Amino acid sequence: MINYPNQKKEGTNNNKNDNSSNRGMSLEQDLDYTNKYYLHHNIANIHKKPTPIQIVKVDYPKRQAAKITEAYFKLPSTTDYNGIYQGKYLDFEAKETRNKTKFIFTNIHKHQIEHLKSVIYHGGIAFFIIKFTSFNEVYLLSAQIVIDAINSGAKSLSYDIINAEGFLIKQGYQPRLDYLKAIDQLINLR
Amino acid sequence: MINYPNQKKEGTNNNKNDNSSNRGMSLEQDLDYTNKYYLHHNIANIHKKPTPIQIVKVDYPKRQAAKITEAYFKLPSTTDYNGIYQGKYLDFEAKETRNKTKFIFTNIHKHQIEHLKSVIYHGGIAFFIIKFTSFNEVYLLSAQIVIDAINSGAKSLSYDIINAEGFLIKQGYQPRLDYLKAIDQLINLR
Repeated sequence: MINYPNQKKEGTNNNKNDNSSNRGMSLEQDLDYTNKYYLHHNIANIHKKPTPIQIVKVDYPKRQAAKITEAYFKLPSTTDYNGIYQGKYLDFEAKETRNKTKFIFTNIHKHQIEHLKSVIYHGGIAFFIIKFTSFNEVYLLSAQIVIDAINSGAKSLSYDIINAEGFLIKQGYQPRLDYLKAIDQLINLR
Repeated sequence: MINYPNQKKEGTNNNKNDNSSNRGMSLEQDLDYTNKYYLHHNIANIHKKPTPIQIVKVDYPKRQAAKITEAYFKLPSTTDYNGIYQGKYLDFEAKETRNKTKFIFTNIHKHQIEHLKSVIYHGGIAFFIIKFTSFNEVYLLSAQIVIDAINSGAKSLSYDIINAEGFLIKQGYQPRLDYLKAIDQLINLR
């Protein structure tokens, strides 16, 4: 683990060749590129769900596309990503944190945890992808570990636990975040 | 099959007890209620994806929720529904038609067909739910049948083929459209 002294180096990659391609990329962008790579190479079919919007008012100007003029963001009832890999249902939430010592649960909604529990119950693979932006490290962590922590009353997981229990995702050019390699490891453990 | 002479009787249910609950319900509403029933009874975890929206302008009024003031509908890149049932990945598109003799493919986008092919390739269960509103009949049809028809150059599937090759979904009160019963039949056939 490399603890960069300041946030300006966020996104710097250890592999010099990959440097420019990764600089300033958000986790969501990296996952979108990765999912496109998986899709076009017939490795998996995984998508980010659209942001849920409550539409209030729509104008229908002549000869033009319908224009939404009043709408509001809704709380998502599930996680952001799901799909299929080697016949298995995958479901996950992706989170970034600038915190260097822990991943705090404040942005995980109760219904998302209920959703992940349900996915596990039905035989799916539920996990989190957590990026520690200060270290430019991205981990894949079984959702069960977060569920267990929440059940025990914890409000966060320490970086050390995630480093020990999670799988560090290899960053590269194509794919940018090869998280299915970590899924292979997770499946072998079960 | 009962061919009602006029559309006013659309939504009329053969079971008198279920009549009022089903009248005027759209296929989407029926599926939403059904998916909630499946979720709360731990039968399956299946959701409709939010409508994809291109957000252009957002206002942030003080003390109020962020308000989207300019946005446009985007073409969906996948299907409307997906989820997990008995460890299996399910993916489908739901369509209603008033046509009494055929289901026309005009509203099925090319990338949706590519998506369903990909789902089948990865071992998922891909299908259509098609409602003939004139008859108040809802069918579950393997996506492979639609894919094969499109590959052969067809622009539609006849009602008779869907009636023969599809599975008529039982309508009721809870769940309204028990389409997983048809999935059980589909799985047993494979």
